[in-house]
Amino acid sequence: MTRHDPIALREMLKTLFVEGGADTEVAEVTARVLVEGDLLGHHTHGTKLANGYLKDLAAGHASGDPGDLEITQTSAVAALYDGHYLLGPYLVQRALDQCREAAATFGIGMVSLKRSHHIACLAGYLQPLVEANLIPLILTSDPAVASVAPFGGLDRVYTPNPLAIGIPGREQPLLIDVSMSTITNGTVAKARAAGDTLPHPAILTGHGQASDDPEAYFAEPPGSILPLGELAFGHKGFALGLMVEALTSALSGFGRKDSPDGWGASVMVMVIDPSKFGGAEAFLDETDHVARQCQASRPADTERPVRLPGQAALARRRDALDHGLALPQDVVDSLRDAVQGSSLVGTTPFG
Amino acid sequence: MTRHDPIALREMLKTLFVEGGADTEVAEVTARVLVEGDLLGHHTHGTKLANGYLKDLAAGHASGDPGDLEITQTSAVAALYDGHYLLGPYLVQRALDQCREAAATFGIGMVSLKRSHHIACLAGYLQPLVEANLIPLILTSDPAVASVAPFGGLDRVYTPNPLAIGIPGREQPLLIDVSMSTITNGTVAKARAAGDTLPHPAILTGHGQASDDPEAYFAEPPGSILPLGELAFGHKGFALGLMVEALTSALSGFGRKDSPDGWGASVMVMVIDPSKFGGAEAFLDETDHVARQCQASRPADTERPVRLPGQAALARRRDALDHGLALPQDVVDSLRDAVQGSSLVGTTPFG
Repeated sequence: MTRHDPIALREMLKTLFVEGGADTEVAEVTARVLVEGDLLGHHTHGTKLANGYLKDLAAGHASGDPGDLEITQTSAVAALYDGHYLLGPYLVQRALDQCREAAATFGIGMVSLKRSHHIACLAGYLQPLVEANLIPLILTSDPAVASVAPFGGLDRVYTPNPLAIGIPGREQPLLIDVSMSTITNGTVAKARAAGDTLPHPAILTGHGQASDDPEAYFAEPPGSILPLGELAFGHKGFALGLMVEALTSALSGFGRKDSPDGWGASVMVMVIDPSKFGGAEAFLDETDHVARQCQASRPADTERPVRLPGQAALARRRDALDHGLALPQDVVDSLRDAVQGSSLVGTTPFG
Repeated sequence: MTRHDPIALREMLKTLFVEGGADTEVAEVTARVLVEGDLLGHHTHGTKLANGYLKDLAAGHASGDPGDLEITQTSAVAALYDGHYLLGPYLVQRALDQCREAAATFGIGMVSLKRSHHIACLAGYLQPLVEANLIPLILTSDPAVASVAPFGGLDRVYTPNPLAIGIPGREQPLLIDVSMSTITNGTVAKARAAGDTLPHPAILTGHGQASDDPEAYFAEPPGSILPLGELAFGHKGFALGLMVEALTSALSGFGRKDSPDGWGASVMVMVIDPSKFGGAEAFLDETDHVARQCQASRPADTERPVRLPGQAALARRRDALDHGLALPQDVVDSLRDAVQGSSLVGTTPFG
């Protein structure tokens, strides 16, 4: 597989977004966050998304104008953003920057963001804050989409609703990015396109049976994605999914009640500074201690030692920075498509 | 089953705690929170705990003196509490009151609490805040106990690590109280004592197999409680468990690295005010809308319609307030034990 230079890839995407009408800073941040997704190995939520973002910019479904962002500052630590469908990575990064500033004085900062365009890979935002010994927290839902059914029900109501949090540590920081459902919409679509079954029964068929067949999601009656905890403990995943719904859409004041359509996101962004609570040193000591205990836990399968959240992703990232970034064929194809019609044709590895 | 008057029960417990050496307000709050646990149907985390609290007060393992609470106020919205093992319900209620006050001005308030004594039923704190259209959030871990193994590992490292959050709604507020593991330590102990198998395989045996036998937890080599998501998606429950560890123990600066013993808790308390974000009315509209959609989802089992988090508990609470509180025999036995040796002997339904 060809390996790509992450910096060149970032520059290429930035140029494409600028040519697509985005402001320079919006283009730069969006390009960086998308490449970060691939660096961490989340190829469904990395540069593959650029083509769709560009199409939405061209169609007026996404904005690249930072002037569209409307900020209501309700206190020194709290703000409401109306994103007016600006590219999501720019909005989330702005929110993180603002929360970070508030946290430096108050220990915490929080932004509720409505009407964002898609926000890409949540894990891709965490590292710079974690390296500054801060705790970034990002929750999101998409009020225009319903793919998960409430526990005990058959009809889809809400989205996988991921939660991402970065935990500073000296030896091994933790990058957590998990949905409150068993799998995501992207995983279902990918398995279906490849004609694969899923590794686990993560779909609830329209008749209420667990299934590993992605086609069951698209059948008649339609299936749904099972909440985390599945048939036995899915009431917990359902409750956590509703928590994310409430802290994103309900808190922002814009959600399913407004029947939005198109690619969008409701987002909660928070930054917590441990130095305003029990202290940064004690925080790092405790993270290191617990991480070591986890890694010392005898593996159930001797071939597979315990892995901490983000450990594999950070290893992939280091490898990609050292040796170039390998991109799956579907990502390469999507980037090729994105480059067509731009000034870059003939100057990139993608055509 | 005899039904008890919740108010009389609260008064009885208050007297017992005062006779046990607790300050009047500490006794009152603790009694109220314990009865609230039973009202919501969480009998393992209700008044059954009183006897153990009283024993710890007598032995000096718990404090009933509010003067023991040490508050470090680091900003207008953030504080660190060192509880010095004061009875947990008093500490959590103090933290909630302080967060509520901060949230009224700033939209959010946050307290990190270390060295609390046991904090009882998390759901029992939520309702008064939810009824004021606020979002209370409580996370806790016990750094003195290890019962859950990291995903892929066999050795126990951390606790079930529950998260509770209240979501205001006009028609049906949501009371969420879920652990990041499949089941809690209490459920394992209860099934074992009754000689029952568990309803689902929630134990990982010391050989790495999922099991519904509570004895597998106590066997040699010892078992552990599976994280939420179990064998297929347990990496998510593991990540969420580590999140709660970090936001409780690590953030408070006191945790497993300090090798504590005895009944204790690290706690994070937060209150968010929707009126400082997208507005209370819009929040309530969205909660109602999503709740209605969930309840309209066709049930997989026609006998069992979709239930929202807290719906059954709130129905139980209403019934208990109207018709008296039914207590299981093990709770009655424990209360009888607690009453022995007090001035109340012969004046209560418990002896």
